[in-house]
Amino acid sequence: MTNNNGLGHTLVVPSGVEIDLRFMTSAELHTTATSIADVLAWLSEHRARNSAELERVSLFELDNWRVHPGTGNVAHDSGRFFTIEGVRVQTDYGLVPRWAQPIINQPEIGILGLLVREQDGIMQCLVQAKMEPGNIGSVQISPTVQATRSNYTRVHRGAATNYLEYFQNPRDVIADVLQSEQGARFLRKRNRNMIVEVGGNVPVVDGYRWVSLAQLYELLKLDNVVNMDLRSVLSSVSLVSEASGRRTASTGTPPKEAMPGTSSWARSIFQPERSLHTYAEVLSWLTNAKTLFDLRVDRIPLNEAEHWRMKDGAIGHEDGQFFSVIGVGVTSADREVAGWTQPMIATEHEGLIAFLVKSINDIPHFLCHSRVEAGNFDIVEISPTVQCITRNYRNLPVDKQPKYLQAVLNAPARNVLYSAYQSEEGGRFYRQQNRYMIVRVDDDFPVTPQDDYIWLSLGQLQHFIRYANHINVEARSLVACLSATYRNDLTDPVLS
Amino acid sequence: MTNNNGLGHTLVVPSGVEIDLRFMTSAELHTTATSIADVLAWLSEHRARNSAELERVSLFELDNWRVHPGTGNVAHDSGRFFTIEGVRVQTDYGLVPRWAQPIINQPEIGILGLLVREQDGIMQCLVQAKMEPGNIGSVQISPTVQATRSNYTRVHRGAATNYLEYFQNPRDVIADVLQSEQGARFLRKRNRNMIVEVGGNVPVVDGYRWVSLAQLYELLKLDNVVNMDLRSVLSSVSLVSEASGRRTASTGTPPKEAMPGTSSWARSIFQPERSLHTYAEVLSWLTNAKTLFDLRVDRIPLNEAEHWRMKDGAIGHEDGQFFSVIGVGVTSADREVAGWTQPMIATEHEGLIAFLVKSINDIPHFLCHSRVEAGNFDIVEISPTVQCITRNYRNLPVDKQPKYLQAVLNAPARNVLYSAYQSEEGGRFYRQQNRYMIVRVDDDFPVTPQDDYIWLSLGQLQHFIRYANHINVEARSLVACLSATYRNDLTDPVLS
Repeated sequence: MTNNNGLGHTLVVPSGVEIDLRFMTSAELHTTATSIADVLAWLSEHRARNSAELERVSLFELDNWRVHPGTGNVAHDSGRFFTIEGVRVQTDYGLVPRWAQPIINQPEIGILGLLVREQDGIMQCLVQAKMEPGNIGSVQISPTVQATRSNYTRVHRGAATNYLEYFQNPRDVIADVLQSEQGARFLRKRNRNMIVEVGGNVPVVDGYRWVSLAQLYELLKLDNVVNMDLRSVLSSVSLVSEASGRRTASTGTPPKEAMPGTSSWARSIFQPERSLHTYAEVLSWLTNAKTLFDLRVDRIPLNEAEHWRMKDGAIGHEDGQFFSVIGVGVTSADREVAGWTQPMIATEHEGLIAFLVKSINDIPHFLCHSRVEAGNFDIVEISPTVQCITRNYRNLPVDKQPKYLQAVLNAPARNVLYSAYQSEEGGRFYRQQNRYMIVRVDDDFPVTPQDDYIWLSLGQLQHFIRYANHINVEARSLVACLSATYRNDLTDPVLS
Repeated sequence: MTNNNGLGHTLVVPSGVEIDLRFMTSAELHTTATSIADVLAWLSEHRARNSAELERVSLFELDNWRVHPGTGNVAHDSGRFFTIEGVRVQTDYGLVPRWAQPIINQPEIGILGLLVREQDGIMQCLVQAKMEPGNIGSVQISPTVQATRSNYTRVHRGAATNYLEYFQNPRDVIADVLQSEQGARFLRKRNRNMIVEVGGNVPVVDGYRWVSLAQLYELLKLDNVVNMDLRSVLSSVSLVSEASGRRTASTGTPPKEAMPGTSSWARSIFQPERSLHTYAEVLSWLTNAKTLFDLRVDRIPLNEAEHWRMKDGAIGHEDGQFFSVIGVGVTSADREVAGWTQPMIATEHEGLIAFLVKSINDIPHFLCHSRVEAGNFDIVEISPTVQCITRNYRNLPVDKQPKYLQAVLNAPARNVLYSAYQSEEGGRFYRQQNRYMIVRVDDDFPVTPQDDYIWLSLGQLQHFIRYANHINVEARSLVACLSATYRNDLTDPVLS
């Protein structure tokens, strides 16, 4: 079943989204090893050339940023980029019915764009070695375009955004969706996540290079190499690990016929009837979650956020918990790049972001949570099994801890399919890294989850990523990281 | 491909939503005629018993409603139900960059629920003969449950909502989605549209009855019989007109194999590769529309809405255009029902809501518009080809008229597939009816649409209705009305 609009490589499935089989069959994915040595050398070179030095600065001493004397809000003189304001939250979700907090208000929709091409059966992505001050390692591998509207309309009077034109009126769009970022830190922020295919010759600017999809998946195994924006965009790519999920344009044979008994990846995509729940059930579960809880978020002046204090030029919670708003001065090792100052969000302790995976009907299912966060665009987004700052919970009795935290922390090593530290958005978060984990549970783990949780198949997760504001950024990051395990069969009883 | 969760009648399609084949094959749909005489007799009886008499009342003389002296907002003393407030709108969409208007603020999510059952291969729906003061005809056929949260939490101290319990923790959910209502009148209002299946015996309360799906589709051909809420819920049902789209549980044969060459309805659903655009293209078109336009909506006190005036106890535009906010006193013919007063929205002139349909790749495609409305939840929803108050435009030169208006108004009778007057929500709108039309265009009609328009197949429209806030209420109404034509082949060159 190929469609008739000239995209012969696209599998159109009834009533659903299309699956671009080339991502699944990209030749290099099916070799036994992929070299990333040259990519890492390239990254090291750019880290040496362009790393940032950061120093803490008082919020009152930032250039072009002001703490508004009446409201305490932190804003850029141009009125663009973002502001840090207050919100008061009232909800019947969770243990705390009412609180106030600082939040980042960035109403403009930016673009996170990835250019891809096919070369001799290998899918390649044009990535950038981009310095962002908050990143661990400073320079990380980033999408082709990562631009706020302030960037690309050049409010900052900087250079034009490279490759932006490929994402304006693009012809071959593979994915294009508005996605949220951290709902606990951003007020309804959304970026446009785009994957666009190019043919022909694309000039490669210094600081950019083509890497294969297989290389990106290997790089995702490493700590703090692939930045958050690229992880978010990559979550829109769906793949299976076996060549039997081949193109159908030439044969016309739906790959599902060819694939029973092959890897769990392939079964997840092509045998949706193995999913524990129908789409109608999942959509109803999500609709119910949105009506179950009240969430009222009122914007308030930041200096009216109770329990938050300005002290020594930074804003923090009086208990020292949660996060702080700090000022940072940035100096680049590259002497041609001017330094600047800006506010950032600092968290002292690392968080844990994890999916539990269970084999149900012989395909992997991921335990998903309908999570309410203050900045969510629509009350609830589908979130990982565990998403928390572990320090806040490690010493609490188990019944006060986040659900399923122990199942992740106590998992035997043989069940840990993925574990790495990844940085959150380096333009806003000061050296914030979280531990991302995918942990398999044993067969005796209960199939009936606790309230607010549901088991979704990989195909379902990937389907909902195509729809705006269904899957939160932490879960999307994990879906991208999951691809790092593509050479494994996720339902194998014991992993080599 | 049936799923394995016990719903043997559900067709699971890869990566997509399920299609419940029973709605397509409901036996009575395939007889040549369906009698609605007894349903109309039942409706007449309830109209005689329970019609409302309306009288205009000053907004200052409503019981339990107040015009707030400081803001001019109109609100209920309990703080519940809804308020009429002001908004100031700034946008680069359309011809008017900035305006203020009254808007209905009803933040609570209500339930519009339809109970269905299968009896001897016939799908039946439990409907209510419900009086709503603004309806033309007063009593119209309504869903099983139509309740604001204020209703079902009994703020009004009235009776409990019948059948509500079937929609709380339901087991067999066929559809469950948050949907918008008129974005030009409501500020981000949403209702939960639910279809729930019941087995066994359901007691039928006075004022309710079972009608078959085929009867409902016949009733949709009549003016002002099926109310807006039921039209909205019915849009979640998908069907084809030929029995060849049969259940697959027993045979395991995907119906698409069985159906080439059958009706355009069946081809639309089971041959998605005939759609002009892939889902990726449609989603990208929608994402682009949401980033193309700025829409800023600020809530303001109603008495600060420029060009709107309180006069003789009603609020209207100083040019007499658009709509008014009036007070209404309601007396029921049923002496056991107490009278009440409330504010309503009155529009003097009827509107036109129409889809143009064109056969492309031998299946019908509907010309859809990405329409920005002030009260939209997410900037843009997919809307009919034409949606306007015709009086405002009939005398304008063609280039100032809404796009495609002439193609609808000048269509030859042989191309009019559907035309009827339907009422908008009778609890808020005072006798507002719009003309709903589905008009086929000839083969020489351009396949490349104007800006902001796209041709979607029936299967695509029905798919997006399963996802919150994708298809606006006017388009959903038309999709329901379209079902009234289910015995026709929409791509027939000449209709009998």
